Amino acid sequence: MSRSIRLAVIPGDGIGQEVVAQGLKVLTSVLPQDVKLETKEYDLGAKRWHATGETLPDAEMESLKQHDAILLGAIGDPSVPSGVLERGLLLKLRFAFDHFVNLRPSKLFPNTSTPLAGRPDIDFIVVREGTEGPYTGNGGSLRTGTPHEVATEVSLNTAYGVERVVRDAYERAKARPRKKLTLVHKNNVLVHAGHMWKNIFDKVGEEYPEVTTDYLHVDAATIFFVTQPERFDVIVTDNLFGDILTDLAAAVTGGIGLAASGNINPSGAFPSMFEPVHGSAPDIAGTGKADPTATILSVALLLRHLGYEAEAARIEEAVAADLEARDGSPRTTDEIGDALAGRVAG
Amino acid sequence: MSRSIRLAVIPGDGIGQEVVAQGLKVLTSVLPQDVKLETKEYDLGAKRWHATGETLPDAEMESLKQHDAILLGAIGDPSVPSGVLERGLLLKLRFAFDHFVNLRPSKLFPNTSTPLAGRPDIDFIVVREGTEGPYTGNGGSLRTGTPHEVATEVSLNTAYGVERVVRDAYERAKARPRKKLTLVHKNNVLVHAGHMWKNIFDKVGEEYPEVTTDYLHVDAATIFFVTQPERFDVIVTDNLFGDILTDLAAAVTGGIGLAASGNINPSGAFPSMFEPVHGSAPDIAGTGKADPTATILSVALLLRHLGYEAEAARIEEAVAADLEARDGSPRTTDEIGDALAGRVAG
Ligand SMILES: CC(C)[C@H](C(=O)O)[C@@H](O)C(=O)O
Ligand SMILES: CC(C)[C@H](C(=O)O)[C@@H](O)C(=O)O
Repeated sequence: MSRSIRLAVIPGDGIGQEVVAQGLKVLTSVLPQDVKLETKEYDLGAKRWHATGETLPDAEMESLKQHDAILLGAIGDPSVPSGVLERGLLLKLRFAFDHFVNLRPSKLFPNTSTPLAGRPDIDFIVVREGTEGPYTGNGGSLRTGTPHEVATEVSLNTAYGVERVVRDAYERAKARPRKKLTLVHKNNVLVHAGHMWKNIFDKVGEEYPEVTTDYLHVDAATIFFVTQPERFDVIVTDNLFGDILTDLAAAVTGGIGLAASGNINPSGAFPSMFEPVHGSAPDIAGTGKADPTATILSVALLLRHLGYEAEAARIEEAVAADLEARDGSPRTTDEIGDALAGRVAG
Repeated sequence: MSRSIRLAVIPGDGIGQEVVAQGLKVLTSVLPQDVKLETKEYDLGAKRWHATGETLPDAEMESLKQHDAILLGAIGDPSVPSGVLERGLLLKLRFAFDHFVNLRPSKLFPNTSTPLAGRPDIDFIVVREGTEGPYTGNGGSLRTGTPHEVATEVSLNTAYGVERVVRDAYERAKARPRKKLTLVHKNNVLVHAGHMWKNIFDKVGEEYPEVTTDYLHVDAATIFFVTQPERFDVIVTDNLFGDILTDLAAAVTGGIGLAASGNINPSGAFPSMFEPVHGSAPDIAGTGKADPTATILSVALLLRHLGYEAEAARIEEAVAADLEARDGSPRTTDEIGDALAGRVAG
């Protein structure tokens, strides 16, 4: 049997380049000999935009569709107006490829530093909706720049979009030992979207009697993230709340140097995209200080999505072992990548 | 000179009753003899709604306007559908009385427990916009309850509304030793509202050259709340982001048992309203376990707003001293109120 992975690689901006190189190193190292890895690099991000004014041309969009998955480093640079690359590239991909499951695991690995006293036992995943909510680009502004300006942002939510991501979250909760699913929203204020989310959450839940459920307002959820994070197993939430909560989750589990994410289209109709939660960190780009672990853990999510469960688990075990073995002396991006590539080598 | 305070009191639901009683006790104790305190209690909240279906009738609204300030305990009960009391009472008051400055100080008092390791030096205030954003009740749902439902939530933002709260925040920053103001938004995704906020923030800032400014996306801000909270001095932000951030701020500064807030109309056209950040906590109502400190600190904000600066400071010093003197044995709501009333007595 000969197998292959056609991987699109978007290193992007800043430390994106450096961390993606390490992700590919570990990927190559972990894959069985018989799996053919074909990678194609896409030059997208701030440099491209400055040179050509393009964020993501149609031809490249078409080309990206031909891949089995996408590995992305980071997008964004202070030299580009805020929103241009985010909406023209990153969010464009998430929306066009219908990445409705934005999967973000949060685990406090041994021997990593957390700002929380007492090192609570943190091991949960956030299933963030990825194609709706306040991220749809709906809204506008009137009398822009004048004292009479009015600006709107519209959160769009559909039963179709909510039901599929809620169902995905129930499936993930059912497959975990604790089988607990928490819905986070703000249905005491955002009553229309919030009640729809809650009603669908309750209704789909009838099909999953083995899953324990809970509901929290987003403000209360942030409290529990720092006082009782061990209460969470699987969280399902809206696009914007998920954005906020997963940065907080990353912070309490050792920092965004470790937080991985998958932008998943479970149907397989379009390639899914895997990326660290962190940004392009231009301040440390080129210094060798970037931690590639988040990207490497994103590669594990990528492998799991493509059916390489054993290889995904090998990477995750290697990361745990690598963190456990740390003696606190600083390591470069490359050294961390080498250490992990060594550990996963078959 | 004879002075008076005409205070409206809305104890509300759950522990609201208990904590407000202690707030009034301390208020009475701290006020100089010559100040006449007239209180009028309003029976609003879950019980009233169950009995009459009313949340806030026009007559009571008119009557509330006659007061110098409002002290509110907490609103909400699981027996009332989510959103009914929040929108029909609490938010109705904030909007009708144009409470555009939702002021929430965050301070880590000595000898209080924080979930953060290393006890960082936390002392910042959040100026949360209180009358716009996703809280306006704008939005709706179509084909409600069917698989074709579409639900929207519209965030409304005006230059008028943003400018006035941003200006208030600059004034507060200017009056503090560190003179630093951070804008929190999400202008890489919510580009219309986000850019308007940022432009107004920059423009008003030209009038405050002595104030150092910073901008953070809301997701990144949550990271700094737990890893570097000492970097904040004054934060100005949108209604929803402020809601989320201030619960997190409360959690890292010893819990919502200590977090005070003011819903302020700086023009004085309508009475301002002061309330603890916490909710009605029906699970501990009647047990004497509720900490009235957040309400008592809200009374300090109320006094400061009405010009009683010395009395406000006395309450804050009493709270600091009381917390410092704690020996860890549990105290009842009443005992804490008595201790603080004793400390502030003239
Ligand atoms: C860069 C930005 C558009 C993005 C988001 O808001 O989703 C990022 O914060 C993330 O969490 O992936
Ligand atoms: C009860 C709720 C409507 C309210 C809000 O969202 O503003 C509360 O969370 C707060 O922060 O005062």
